[in-house]
Amino acid sequence: MSYDKVTGFQAPSAERWLEFEKNTWSPRPLTDHDVDIQIECCGVCASDMHTISGDWGGCPYPLAVGHEVVGKVINVGSKVTLAKVGQRVGVGAQVWSCLECRQCKNDNETYCKHQIDAYGAEYLDTGFITQGGYSSHTRVHEYWVYPIPEKLSSPEAAPMLCAGITVYSPLKRFGAEPGKKVGIVGIGGLGHYGVLFAKALGAETWAISRSRAKEADARKMGADGFIATGEDGWEKGHEMTFDLIINTANSFEGFELAKYLSLLDVHGRWNSVGLPGGDERMSVRNQDFMANGCVIGSSHLGSRREMLEMLQLAADKGITSWVEEIPISREGLQQAMEKLQKSSVRYRSCMVGYDKAFGA
Amino acid sequence: MSYDKVTGFQAPSAERWLEFEKNTWSPRPLTDHDVDIQIECCGVCASDMHTISGDWGGCPYPLAVGHEVVGKVINVGSKVTLAKVGQRVGVGAQVWSCLECRQCKNDNETYCKHQIDAYGAEYLDTGFITQGGYSSHTRVHEYWVYPIPEKLSSPEAAPMLCAGITVYSPLKRFGAEPGKKVGIVGIGGLGHYGVLFAKALGAETWAISRSRAKEADARKMGADGFIATGEDGWEKGHEMTFDLIINTANSFEGFELAKYLSLLDVHGRWNSVGLPGGDERMSVRNQDFMANGCVIGSSHLGSRREMLEMLQLAADKGITSWVEEIPISREGLQQAMEKLQKSSVRYRSCMVGYDKAFGA
Repeated sequence: MSYDKVTGFQAPSAERWLEFEKNTWSPRPLTDHDVDIQIECCGVCASDMHTISGDWGGCPYPLAVGHEVVGKVINVGSKVTLAKVGQRVGVGAQVWSCLECRQCKNDNETYCKHQIDAYGAEYLDTGFITQGGYSSHTRVHEYWVYPIPEKLSSPEAAPMLCAGITVYSPLKRFGAEPGKKVGIVGIGGLGHYGVLFAKALGAETWAISRSRAKEADARKMGADGFIATGEDGWEKGHEMTFDLIINTANSFEGFELAKYLSLLDVHGRWNSVGLPGGDERMSVRNQDFMANGCVIGSSHLGSRREMLEMLQLAADKGITSWVEEIPISREGLQQAMEKLQKSSVRYRSCMVGYDKAFGA
Repeated sequence: MSYDKVTGFQAPSAERWLEFEKNTWSPRPLTDHDVDIQIECCGVCASDMHTISGDWGGCPYPLAVGHEVVGKVINVGSKVTLAKVGQRVGVGAQVWSCLECRQCKNDNETYCKHQIDAYGAEYLDTGFITQGGYSSHTRVHEYWVYPIPEKLSSPEAAPMLCAGITVYSPLKRFGAEPGKKVGIVGIGGLGHYGVLFAKALGAETWAISRSRAKEADARKMGADGFIATGEDGWEKGHEMTFDLIINTANSFEGFELAKYLSLLDVHGRWNSVGLPGGDERMSVRNQDFMANGCVIGSSHLGSRREMLEMLQLAADKGITSWVEEIPISREGLQQAMEKLQKSSVRYRSCMVGYDKAFGA
């Protein structure tokens, strides 16, 4: 089974980014390593909003965003070995890299200079602009197509493909394991996976949030402890006790970084995974790092190997994503975006009902 | 042989910090673990200038600074086992920590919350304010007293005790070794040791400086390559090739951090060891770390174990410090400070002639 046209909901312009239009376009030509996927559902990432609203400097309009896709393989290129027709698979925020450079050969394809994002990016050979998962189908190189373990439902698995891997990779790479104490700053879409996965990896896991509004939820997710940074002296007693802190907050406003860094043990790591809109900057002094020799940095998504490992861990440990399902439509997408803007989603929206919207 | 009084050159106040006065004071009471040292020479560190000039917010005046001391043991407390009378030893920038906390027990005594600096710090038991090495004697807990290998001359060994260890420790801890590419930013007192030790540890070593003025020197020190950041497009061709960069520059002025960070390989580390005066801040964006998942941070001095290892490495590899010797006196110290201010020292001053200034 193949298809000639893709139908999807595209943002028409930065000015009218919420006025999603249902459009139809041609997919790029099928190549030997491509996998055709009929999309079943797609998680809603803050990146989707930042991209089409122009927060990050604009994008090629009209554009369908969405990069937490789960669907069914309906066709494969002649050389595909990593996926087969009928299989349920996922696609995340990256859909291509050269696979030949040192980074690609070293489990670091997310740092390849030639990487292509799931939407709004150009394939250099065809000039095709990638379109995301708010649409009926997608055609992706097999390397970025991941079989979904049976135990995970599709709307649960979908948000793991960006939100999940974005926190899983740094947790794994930077030492979340038994005997280590890990903090997750910001309990939202990414943060809730931070708590779930840090705990699943065996670390002592602390949720760090502004107020205690999400404490009960965080503890249900498995948090061993909770810190509310709106409370006076919140850092007291926690200095130099954390090995790793994953920061999922995507604003630096009113952020006293030095206090957060004081939580870190010697050479501990503060790893940010949120990307603030605009040109928001953080101001740091060498002195802020001196008391414990800590570091700050970021990480970008995670490798294919880590993606498969994370999905298997989620299946094995029975990890349940906290997902709100919203039927895909113009209004449904507007609702999802509004929830993002208000930070009212608990904890990730997933667009569903694709058969109804696009036909089976 | 013991002594009742210490004579030294003290800065009288922030306003008159260059008007060193030759004063005499009583040492603190000898304890069981103390070692008495008759000082032979003392390196001149930028910290000395920052401290007495008030750059770092002032200090208890009058104060003798200097924390790169080499001298002879002339007396020891009853329980001392790590040094003996007659031995040539060194003392660096730290002279005490609790030796009981997790950090102290884990090769991280420089991150102990109870550490005491070699000058301007208070011993909590006696209230004694530590005085540095621009003076005739010092009395220091044996743990912070390091035997100097015979092969190293005293004026060569002295600056290793702060400048040397400050770069040696992060080089060692963060992976300077064969097969790794290491950059040293700023070729001054610390930077010249950065090049010497990175090379001695087997790393491919690059000196990174504003102009090419120090290129010939850096290559004599062993640099395999040289980058002049004053040249247009200086970063081209070096992106994602460095595993570790030690930043010894102590000003952020005009510093395009993002360009430097682009030099780092995936998860590479930018480690600053300079402490700017005042409240100088660096502005960073999460985006600056995203392309390679790099980190920035600092480190503080190095442990006793690393100090002994560094001195032995220097002796074994025949590492030669580039030292300008200046006889100690009021005028000599003024000259040393002026050289610091002008960055004209090649590459570390060491005050000598203590026998003449203070009597044998």
